[in-house]
Amino acid sequence: MVKPMHKLQSDSRNLSMIMDFYEMTMSNGYFNANLQDQVAVFDLFFRTNPDEAGFSIFAGLQQIVDYVLNLHFDDADIDYLRSQHCFSDSFLEYLRSFRFKGDIYAVAEGTVIYPNEPVITVVAPLIDAQLVETMMLLIMNHQTLIATKANRIVRAAQGRAVSDFGARRAHNGDAAVYGARAAYIGGVNSTATVLAGQMFDIPVSGTMAHSWVMVFEDEFAAFRQYALTYPDNTVLLVDTYDVLHSGVPNAIRVAKEVLEPMGKRLKGIRLDSGDLAYLSKKCRKMLDAAGLEDCMIVVSNSLDEFSIESLFNQGARIDSFGVGERLITSKSHPVFGAVYKNVAIVKDGVMIPKIKISENVEKITNPGFKQVWRIYDEFGKAVADMLSLHEETVDLSKPYPYMDPKKPWKHRVFENCSGKPLLSKVIDKGELVKPLPTLDQIRYYVRHQLDHEIWDEEQRFVNPHLHYLDMSQTMYDLKMKLLSESRHHGS
Amino acid sequence: MVKPMHKLQSDSRNLSMIMDFYEMTMSNGYFNANLQDQVAVFDLFFRTNPDEAGFSIFAGLQQIVDYVLNLHFDDADIDYLRSQHCFSDSFLEYLRSFRFKGDIYAVAEGTVIYPNEPVITVVAPLIDAQLVETMMLLIMNHQTLIATKANRIVRAAQGRAVSDFGARRAHNGDAAVYGARAAYIGGVNSTATVLAGQMFDIPVSGTMAHSWVMVFEDEFAAFRQYALTYPDNTVLLVDTYDVLHSGVPNAIRVAKEVLEPMGKRLKGIRLDSGDLAYLSKKCRKMLDAAGLEDCMIVVSNSLDEFSIESLFNQGARIDSFGVGERLITSKSHPVFGAVYKNVAIVKDGVMIPKIKISENVEKITNPGFKQVWRIYDEFGKAVADMLSLHEETVDLSKPYPYMDPKKPWKHRVFENCSGKPLLSKVIDKGELVKPLPTLDQIRYYVRHQLDHEIWDEEQRFVNPHLHYLDMSQTMYDLKMKLLSESRHHGS
Repeated sequence: MVKPMHKLQSDSRNLSMIMDFYEMTMSNGYFNANLQDQVAVFDLFFRTNPDEAGFSIFAGLQQIVDYVLNLHFDDADIDYLRSQHCFSDSFLEYLRSFRFKGDIYAVAEGTVIYPNEPVITVVAPLIDAQLVETMMLLIMNHQTLIATKANRIVRAAQGRAVSDFGARRAHNGDAAVYGARAAYIGGVNSTATVLAGQMFDIPVSGTMAHSWVMVFEDEFAAFRQYALTYPDNTVLLVDTYDVLHSGVPNAIRVAKEVLEPMGKRLKGIRLDSGDLAYLSKKCRKMLDAAGLEDCMIVVSNSLDEFSIESLFNQGARIDSFGVGERLITSKSHPVFGAVYKNVAIVKDGVMIPKIKISENVEKITNPGFKQVWRIYDEFGKAVADMLSLHEETVDLSKPYPYMDPKKPWKHRVFENCSGKPLLSKVIDKGELVKPLPTLDQIRYYVRHQLDHEIWDEEQRFVNPHLHYLDMSQTMYDLKMKLLSESRHHGS
Repeated sequence: MVKPMHKLQSDSRNLSMIMDFYEMTMSNGYFNANLQDQVAVFDLFFRTNPDEAGFSIFAGLQQIVDYVLNLHFDDADIDYLRSQHCFSDSFLEYLRSFRFKGDIYAVAEGTVIYPNEPVITVVAPLIDAQLVETMMLLIMNHQTLIATKANRIVRAAQGRAVSDFGARRAHNGDAAVYGARAAYIGGVNSTATVLAGQMFDIPVSGTMAHSWVMVFEDEFAAFRQYALTYPDNTVLLVDTYDVLHSGVPNAIRVAKEVLEPMGKRLKGIRLDSGDLAYLSKKCRKMLDAAGLEDCMIVVSNSLDEFSIESLFNQGARIDSFGVGERLITSKSHPVFGAVYKNVAIVKDGVMIPKIKISENVEKITNPGFKQVWRIYDEFGKAVADMLSLHEETVDLSKPYPYMDPKKPWKHRVFENCSGKPLLSKVIDKGELVKPLPTLDQIRYYVRHQLDHEIWDEEQRFVNPHLHYLDMSQTMYDLKMKLLSESRHHGS
């Protein structure tokens, strides 16, 4: 007999309402000014890589597409908005049948991305473009942050397995689940978060907590019972009492007295505290001396790319890493700062590019509806990215003159290069253009780029080479023209 | 005509499955060892305050209770677990009708909490206690982190309004929504996140983005249209082109030419870039000179308690703060490190306390089923907290000798003090004991404690006084006894 469910506040949540209130006040303003059919172009981009890295890994496109295609307002939402006493009835009726009607261009999920180039471009009526802003940013900022951090940790682990152990320190449920997804894109091998395994088909892993060891009569009894339950996957947590004098000796005894008579081997031990470099080396010796050379050493406890690098520098003997809080919150840099800026409006069928000036020079935007080109040398290495206008022809089969906006006096030419346009249309007039790649395809794509396309010099953790962002001559001329005209908009 | 909904992966999610896989492997192990009725006691507590603060603010209890009361596994969950090939059929059948059957004790939501004392205590059969671990930690860690950070920012703002602008930088949807709830508990006045307003009845706020200013012919036209739409709530973003030469002059012109003829006043201007101290002082002078002394200056742009304190030190003229990424991620310290540890098991009706030793001394636990007492002096100030055994009588009406565990050789006595037990039962045998407080009650309680009970010396941001955590003699003797016996458990 199952009890009836307690009423959950989150049961009835409509994700559509996760947006900044100003999206609504602006949309109501546009509607009341009869601007709801005015088409505008917005770029989603970011300004700096977290952790002073050389690049970031774009993640979250699947969740963004899910959100955009589902954006709608039900009766409860309309009633709530009406209760704010600032929206016109005609706008609220408009919202009742609202569906996103615009086009969305995006780079493929898993793409290595760089600052100041559009990752997503929205071409849509003003209200449509505004209502998707908050959630597109939120999803992109979160998943890209975690995929980028995970990728750094995976690179530091030098081929050893990395598992996401972060759920308990995540910023609530979605952060655990979508964070696990992003970490898998970044290259981790598995997650401890069951729902992430269930939703996304990510391998799940997990064995025991200290509590398992503590509820039995003694440590040996606890290890023995675990081995009897999971003889094919016995990984024992050895630091509840004393790693070297109790944990490892009891683990070895279980290997000999419980598992070997069943024809099984001890799969691993886990260290979750203490000096992991020292302990892992001591444990390795004890296990090897007992003939358990195949027993893995798994470590956890506040790990990230920096501590893992340091462990290897100290000769630690580690086969697998469980990484928690510093992965799932990107603790050393927990904010990914993508923004969403108007770059053009369409008036009487003509695209009018816009620029945003700012007191902070680095906040000046790149105007117009653009394409991003990744430029490869003859060896397939990505040597630069280049912004062009979206419909501009870029022919790299012959020498191609371009502008370096930081050194515009130089005459630069791409020779023996090829180029790939990164932005492609994923939503056309509110409809998905074609199915998005699977999670495993995205994960493979990340790895392929790092193995073959991205310079090692950009992959360093400290002082990496900064990727060049160039412009076509047309793009550069447009930006200069708008900058010189910009005073007139403000005054 | 409304389009049919795209199928969302998150539509069918069961929050019950947000847990570490090891909760399941341990539970299956307990079940197969016939230990499913073995009652155990677990404490949820933390070891250090974020930002080296003097205290934290407990938040998340409502969401934890919702989770625990709803914990269940549906057919899809059972099928998924079966597909992992490591759980017995009888365990999976047991899960199918599983409901949480235990007791949960907790301090009231909004309580000022300190390290190393139980915030939540679970007394439940082993499986029940284990299955709620991950989500209790995740919720508590997230909401407590944000409530604590928000409270610091609100204290720095010295009575000026603070609004949560963080959604776009939150770690996915739940972090935006429950983060807004936690920030409101911590004392912010409003949120920009619409769904948080809708779910929790938090006041929502928001006006315009730079995009509003950019899609009109010029800045004045944009401001004019906004004022016509919202004459009672006109707050104009003045930094799209040039604050002092364009933004503020245009705002003043709108106040004079658009609003005043309607009998309305300009409510405010907002600065989102540049040197906020310098600009706010300049803007204040320009507004005052135009007779707009009542026009508020709202600022945003990477604010937190430290930058707000610095702005006031520079004489900034600011009436209201919009706080985003540094609040919603607690950027300076994005991890709240609560843990969940076994402290006792019940054997044949007798409570057997347990202690966890660790290579790291600070990870040694306080054993047994405990109560936390907040000790007040005769002026109502909280002078210390004290751990006792749960059923122990603590009579502070006369001088009460206690132990300071850091200086056990001193003979300490509470005199002229009163004490309040902080832990009370919120779930009894799987049922809610009584309705939990409303969000506004929780928020009021936070403020009341800080205004009346908590020393100013603990509220400093830098080098605060650290609250004393004492023990009853019985509690201290128990810990010492278990520490001296602990070798036997491990060997």
